[in-house]
Amino acid sequence: MKPELGVCYYPEHWPEAMWADDAASMVETGLAWVRIGEFGWSRMEPQPGDLQFEWLDSAIETLGTAGLKVVLGTPTTTPPRWMLDKHPDMLAVDAQGNPRKFGSRRHYCFSHKGYIDECVRIAQIMGKRYGRNPHVAAWQIDNEYGCHDTTISYSPSALLAFRYWLMDQYGTIGDLNEAWGNVFWSMEYNDFDQIELPNLTVTEPNPAHVLAFRRFSSDQVVAFNKAQVDVLRTHIDAPLLHNYMGRVLDFDHFEVGADLDIATWDSYPIGFLSDRLEASEEHKTAFLQQGDPDMQAFHHDLYRAVGRGRCWVMELQPGPVNWAPYNPAPLPGMVRLWSLEAVAHGAEVVSYFRWRQAPFAQEQMHAGLLTPDNRAAPALPEVRQTAEDLANLGEVHQTTAQVAILFDYASDWAWTTQPQGAGFDYFRLIFSAYQALRRAGLSVDFITANDAAKRQYKLVLGPGIATLDRDVERHLKDRSDLTVLGPRSGAITRDFQIPKQGRPGLNCLDCNVDMVETLPPDVERAVEGGGAGKHWIDRLSGTAQDLLSFADKTPALKGADGFWYLAGFPDTDLWDRIVAMAAQDTGIPLHPMPAGLRRRETTDYEFLINYNAEPVDWNGHTIKGCDVAILKRNPPGQS
Amino acid sequence: MKPELGVCYYPEHWPEAMWADDAASMVETGLAWVRIGEFGWSRMEPQPGDLQFEWLDSAIETLGTAGLKVVLGTPTTTPPRWMLDKHPDMLAVDAQGNPRKFGSRRHYCFSHKGYIDECVRIAQIMGKRYGRNPHVAAWQIDNEYGCHDTTISYSPSALLAFRYWLMDQYGTIGDLNEAWGNVFWSMEYNDFDQIELPNLTVTEPNPAHVLAFRRFSSDQVVAFNKAQVDVLRTHIDAPLLHNYMGRVLDFDHFEVGADLDIATWDSYPIGFLSDRLEASEEHKTAFLQQGDPDMQAFHHDLYRAVGRGRCWVMELQPGPVNWAPYNPAPLPGMVRLWSLEAVAHGAEVVSYFRWRQAPFAQEQMHAGLLTPDNRAAPALPEVRQTAEDLANLGEVHQTTAQVAILFDYASDWAWTTQPQGAGFDYFRLIFSAYQALRRAGLSVDFITANDAAKRQYKLVLGPGIATLDRDVERHLKDRSDLTVLGPRSGAITRDFQIPKQGRPGLNCLDCNVDMVETLPPDVERAVEGGGAGKHWIDRLSGTAQDLLSFADKTPALKGADGFWYLAGFPDTDLWDRIVAMAAQDTGIPLHPMPAGLRRRETTDYEFLINYNAEPVDWNGHTIKGCDVAILKRNPPGQS
Amino acid sequence: MKPELGVCYYPEHWPEAMWADDAASMVETGLAWVRIGEFGWSRMEPQPGDLQFEWLDSAIETLGTAGLKVVLGTPTTTPPRWMLDKHPDMLAVDAQGNPRKFGSRRHYCFSHKGYIDECVRIAQIMGKRYGRNPHVAAWQIDNEYGCHDTTISYSPSALLAFRYWLMDQYGTIGDLNEAWGNVFWSMEYNDFDQIELPNLTVTEPNPAHVLAFRRFSSDQVVAFNKAQVDVLRTHIDAPLLHNYMGRVLDFDHFEVGADLDIATWDSYPIGFLSDRLEASEEHKTAFLQQGDPDMQAFHHDLYRAVGRGRCWVMELQPGPVNWAPYNPAPLPGMVRLWSLEAVAHGAEVVSYFRWRQAPFAQEQMHAGLLTPDNRAAPALPEVRQTAEDLANLGEVHQTTAQVAILFDYASDWAWTTQPQGAGFDYFRLIFSAYQALRRAGLSVDFITANDAAKRQYKLVLGPGIATLDRDVERHLKDRSDLTVLGPRSGAITRDFQIPKQGRPGLNCLDCNVDMVETLPPDVERAVEGGGAGKHWIDRLSGTAQDLLSFADKTPALKGADGFWYLAGFPDTDLWDRIVAMAAQDTGIPLHPMPAGLRRRETTDYEFLINYNAEPVDWNGHTIKGCDVAILKRNPPGQS
Repeated sequence: MKPELGVCYYPEHWPEAMWADDAASMVETGLAWVRIGEFGWSRMEPQPGDLQFEWLDSAIETLGTAGLKVVLGTPTTTPPRWMLDKHPDMLAVDAQGNPRKFGSRRHYCFSHKGYIDECVRIAQIMGKRYGRNPHVAAWQIDNEYGCHDTTISYSPSALLAFRYWLMDQYGTIGDLNEAWGNVFWSMEYNDFDQIELPNLTVTEPNPAHVLAFRRFSSDQVVAFNKAQVDVLRTHIDAPLLHNYMGRVLDFDHFEVGADLDIATWDSYPIGFLSDRLEASEEHKTAFLQQGDPDMQAFHHDLYRAVGRGRCWVMELQPGPVNWAPYNPAPLPGMVRLWSLEAVAHGAEVVSYFRWRQAPFAQEQMHAGLLTPDNRAAPALPEVRQTAEDLANLGEVHQTTAQVAILFDYASDWAWTTQPQGAGFDYFRLIFSAYQALRRAGLSVDFITANDAAKRQYKLVLGPGIATLDRDVERHLKDRSDLTVLGPRSGAITRDFQIPKQGRPGLNCLDCNVDMVETLPPDVERAVEGGGAGKHWIDRLSGTAQDLLSFADKTPALKGADGFWYLAGFPDTDLWDRIVAMAAQDTGIPLHPMPAGLRRRETTDYEFLINYNAEPVDWNGHTIKGCDVAILKRNPPGQS
Repeated sequence: MKPELGVCYYPEHWPEAMWADDAASMVETGLAWVRIGEFGWSRMEPQPGDLQFEWLDSAIETLGTAGLKVVLGTPTTTPPRWMLDKHPDMLAVDAQGNPRKFGSRRHYCFSHKGYIDECVRIAQIMGKRYGRNPHVAAWQIDNEYGCHDTTISYSPSALLAFRYWLMDQYGTIGDLNEAWGNVFWSMEYNDFDQIELPNLTVTEPNPAHVLAFRRFSSDQVVAFNKAQVDVLRTHIDAPLLHNYMGRVLDFDHFEVGADLDIATWDSYPIGFLSDRLEASEEHKTAFLQQGDPDMQAFHHDLYRAVGRGRCWVMELQPGPVNWAPYNPAPLPGMVRLWSLEAVAHGAEVVSYFRWRQAPFAQEQMHAGLLTPDNRAAPALPEVRQTAEDLANLGEVHQTTAQVAILFDYASDWAWTTQPQGAGFDYFRLIFSAYQALRRAGLSVDFITANDAAKRQYKLVLGPGIATLDRDVERHLKDRSDLTVLGPRSGAITRDFQIPKQGRPGLNCLDCNVDMVETLPPDVERAVEGGGAGKHWIDRLSGTAQDLLSFADKTPALKGADGFWYLAGFPDTDLWDRIVAMAAQDTGIPLHPMPAGLRRRETTDYEFLINYNAEPVDWNGHTIKGCDVAILKRNPPGQS
Repeated sequence: MKPELGVCYYPEHWPEAMWADDAASMVETGLAWVRIGEFGWSRMEPQPGDLQFEWLDSAIETLGTAGLKVVLGTPTTTPPRWMLDKHPDMLAVDAQGNPRKFGSRRHYCFSHKGYIDECVRIAQIMGKRYGRNPHVAAWQIDNEYGCHDTTISYSPSALLAFRYWLMDQYGTIGDLNEAWGNVFWSMEYNDFDQIELPNLTVTEPNPAHVLAFRRFSSDQVVAFNKAQVDVLRTHIDAPLLHNYMGRVLDFDHFEVGADLDIATWDSYPIGFLSDRLEASEEHKTAFLQQGDPDMQAFHHDLYRAVGRGRCWVMELQPGPVNWAPYNPAPLPGMVRLWSLEAVAHGAEVVSYFRWRQAPFAQEQMHAGLLTPDNRAAPALPEVRQTAEDLANLGEVHQTTAQVAILFDYASDWAWTTQPQGAGFDYFRLIFSAYQALRRAGLSVDFITANDAAKRQYKLVLGPGIATLDRDVERHLKDRSDLTVLGPRSGAITRDFQIPKQGRPGLNCLDCNVDMVETLPPDVERAVEGGGAGKHWIDRLSGTAQDLLSFADKTPALKGADGFWYLAGFPDTDLWDRIVAMAAQDTGIPLHPMPAGLRRRETTDYEFLINYNAEPVDWNGHTIKGCDVAILKRNPPGQS
């Protein structure tokens, strides 16, 4: 696979007279792909039934003729205003009970049948018209599911659908009461029609109720997407994709991805550091204009799994954005660095957002490759350079890593529902594990519980995985040399009960959670020999060996052959110790990395990616600040 | 009175086959009491009118036969879901106007007549069935009034009841306008039906309006409770009680308590420190696993007054809870310490919450004496030890203290309504006074303004008491050697006006408040000789002697024979000076205590309670960390 | 103009028997003016149509006969409760969709036609009755427009009016779509009736939509005021005025002021410092009892422009207020200082709020000149002293300053709508420029873009002015020696689009914004030679000379003859450098001031105003703490 570059473009924003020049400039810059259409419904159908596709025909023809491959988007993320006249109740409803009004985007409830029919209708029209168009080489469905907290809706449509979903899950109301433990606080229902959505309760609702609603809400996204997939497949051979966002965990991306061909995502490294990553002020200042050194790689690796090996970056930040609390510019070199890093992690296409900065509306302060008055923005020459670099690089092939992280969206829903301690967060826990592996210079894969039956790794980390059934335990034992679980792994059933067999309830490891403590952020429990547990402490008993102990001699890590259980949320030092112990146990060679330098292996290359502004020396190489060194690897097996 | 132990138990959560073993284990552990039933309505009456008490009959029989005394709860804190089908408008409404929905607990408005009738009905049914049951030795009505901010409701039922309440209080709308000063900002009403609840106003509503609503809201709790009291009294001779919460001041506990026989409360020392106590980070860290050294004693002393001498702990924390921001475990010894401390302060029964940790629903992470899979949790051996200690201790009798704090719930409502400065809070002020007395090693009683006519103390502290009428002043003068008032004492009338006679408006002390200042938390006013005023400064004039002065020579404490008035909210040093001066003035011997060590005298014993993790030496004794030393007192009068 | 003193008085709050004594005491204190009536509607008209003006006749007669000039207020800020029975939908609606209820003040929506008619009715009645009354020497309309965030309302009345306003502004829906860029995200409308108010959207609404709503909301205030102006003018010759608040920018005060004769404002120096000014804790502590040294002067200078040269202080803080987070007392001398400072900046009248502290309702803790029980409060002797000082001072005449700040309310609406970086705020930017000029000892005028055509200054500062049209640029070039623009000047069109000619898009300066960065508060960009840019950085290109550069050699200040453009939000040091450079360029003499000392020139006097508690030496004079030195100026031109 030779990686290529692309860009997002909105012909409807510019006079048709500019399109041909834009297309020629894109090609001249080294771009091969262009995405269009995903916000264009009001121009495709200005009034109900009044279809106006001539402009889109022309845009595709102009772009395609210039040599560009088109990704065509279905415009269902932005229904036009007239849609609300047809379906006044199609809006999502927030937790306070207010409809989330028209005037921006994503103004629909995933459970509204009428709107889903409209989406199928427009997808059908587009599939028929462009399904065999030679310039349309891929299709994007909708845009950024879940963005702006839109997965969850407390609308009447959602309530109705939730009741049917519950009937389907539980069969009888008695079974539901039993599964949820509704005898507690006399919460028992006599009928499914008495069940409401779990908002605005006096104090916290039953976590089983909330988790069911979270599962349902995710399922609604899957079903919404699949409705368009089904109709498009009848007209289209080109791959179908969706562009996911960063650190959105409200729906199960694996399940949406199972219906699609490629997983793409929208990578805004500087925006994400400012907006959605916990880190010290020092860290945020050090990487203010570069982004966090692990955040992008994390999502590349995660979405490569979601795409079953096929992934793109659909939108890459080319300059300051408009939506984070603070919006500084990337340091020179960073746009190229992010692009090459994406390629190192398997991106087939890296596409920038957007071609030319729009002079109007919400994103007018979001930089593009060109300024609003059509001059080159700082990123343009970097993109041209990147295109040349990729041409020199040739094909890039992914290998299977030696280490995998077990990832589960439902665990985030569970622990968000009942964190038990304010510092406990599934993403933070998983991300801290990922960072530890990356500090050790390891390439990482993500796997689901289902993958455990099919994939083989030397080491699997599964911290915080909410539910662990016996099959998954057996597969992990069969396929992996070592699985490290805990803290809070196997802690609940699918219905949010403590398992009858106890926590974590493993067959192969005699280790029980007797008590759980959560701690304020400034309190930690030191581990003998170095490092500490934070936030969450499982008090363990059982006959499994104590591999590490807290200062009070209670176990910090217990283990038997092939399974370890970790008692606390590790700080940096403890993670490093655990990774080192696990590597030694499984024979994985480590490559400790300096701060801000990261490493990724492909079949033929070793990428050394320097997020620091200053140069770094490592292993005989000097990597310049904001730069990537790409080394030819030794023949496989010798690294 | 020989203190006893108990536990809270939910037979409806467990198979009936387990009950007899549970009962035997309770007895074996040394427990004498068991509370059941208070959340069980959906099992007592699964459908409207479908009464199912056989399980409860059996549970009482099993527990009672094993030798346990049962506290039986009316289940009105958790109406079943079908109740809402009968009374759709029974829910409380929050300040934003949203109904507070079904799905947790306490989902009712205290003013809803239909629901009150349902509560009377179920109480009547239970009273008839179990009123003479020999195993039922006490009755609890409802559960934790006011918990989850449920005292105040902005529902239509509350609005209607409030208008009738106002008619009853004021007679004519003209009198109400006059009392509230509604001429200000043209807020005058022509009719009671124009009055609305004081939420969602453009800017702050008239404090007289808010205070009236707070008084009304408290009265509704009293009436709600009394409706069940009245019906139960016709069937029952056993004592009636309610379990209050910690730092809940939204209703007048003295008034609820007047209709009951015993005041009990739910003591969660570690949860309260994390969740509802202002303290420095250092303090919170030092006592993270012990709780604040004064918080429990404060509530024991307060609720002993509410119970007119009779008090219990109905729920005591036996391990990590689930509801505070952070939930660490008690240090070894603390469960026993809290138990013995409760006894020292007069608790007749100390009951733990709960017997076995529930594996489902909201509180599944709340530790019990047993784990969900029926193993002993860490607290169990401590409880057994405590039972032995109590057996050795024998009877414990309370004495009247030399010092009392004048406590008034309505003062909290007043100062919450109009704090005037962000740092001013009635509980904090009272608690700081209590802490000062405890640092001096004194045992403390709480009294109401009504008690002033009946009880005799060497010293009474009445900081922040909003309204002081002439009778109370006279009683204090007659009965107490010294009363210390201020800051903000006697500052308003019952209708939230500045008194015509000025503030504090005393007959016996020529001391006037000319001006009031409130200060940011980092600004204080030094007092000559040590200590400082914070938050609130009354600028005083008058002929009474200046006992202390601020650095600018304005009075910090003025006094005459038997009455002192304090100008500012004292810091720790100033409180210590005032207590020392008052003790000298009244001849009370002080016993200065080291940090974390507290002292409580009963008729026969001196309890020394060490909240520190480390041992403390005091007065020739070494008290181990997290331990209690119980010394035989010298004959009365010689300590 | 000989400056005079006044006071706010509420005869309806006190027995009529007290009025004559009050009036005599006012005169004795040295007060010449008394404001009454603005909250009195419920006494003027207790029931609909039941007019009761005898008490007001009597009050005016009593006060006037005593020698006081009366400012009579229309009471439309506090419609009585019965008004809501007539117009149930007259309330404003908050952004969450809740009506803002009766029970305090300002409970009306500016767009409600029925209520506007009621206001015209009562104004007409009062105008007829008192229009020629010899004692009524000025009229105030309503009270503190915009206070309590009341400019913006999301009511049905506002929605309807907004649609008509948009039709009027844009003519066709196509033109509106084009002007707003609604093609973005398919936000195009088919009809004006589809447009809703820009609240509760899924993510941020189109900034063009919001800015239009903000312009509309301001216009509604102007229209509301003008309705009363029009009817009063038919009966009255006395000047009409309104009392504005501090740091309220939600409506265009220049446009309201254009219909009135005098601009007055309500000055609460200590309340404002606590409640609505960003400053370091050190600064807030240093000036806790004095107020910020520039905040009052800023508003005097701004409202002098709003009043086209005529301004008053209608309400001046005489002691602790009740509404700020903390409410300390003014240091001795400050009430006099604030009064004399106001006079130095052009106030014709300084009026205190209020005569006697009210013992009831919301403001019972707001100090007056007298205590509630009718004793002298600390401010009274200071006011008497001030009256003597003014008598000695004689006439005070304002001069035109050499320096002006270009001020534009709509720029605040624009940048509030889309700040782009959390630290960017129009008021803060303008205030920082004002502070820099004041540190240099300069007197300052404020001008609007319209004024640029008429007024001549050596130096005009226009940072952050959102829209700059070609005419304004030409006028500035013609009339001013030097105009300093940037950052974010000329950055958008009136419809919130980036101008087609680029930013700032000037004819006379070749300087373009290529990119914009916003920075966290702890990050700054150093400027070579000293100072730094913060919050907002415009990346500039163009042929204009680089007058200052950032450390990375990008331009920090570019300039040509008569126009400079500044790239970043300056810190204190950078502002000082720019002021020094501009002063040198234009020949303005500077008078660098010590911290807390400020200077103001009038035709005959130089006022030196010391906000510090301690004395300050300056230029051969010692100014005591909290004091004002008033020096006779040398003949004009020699200072």
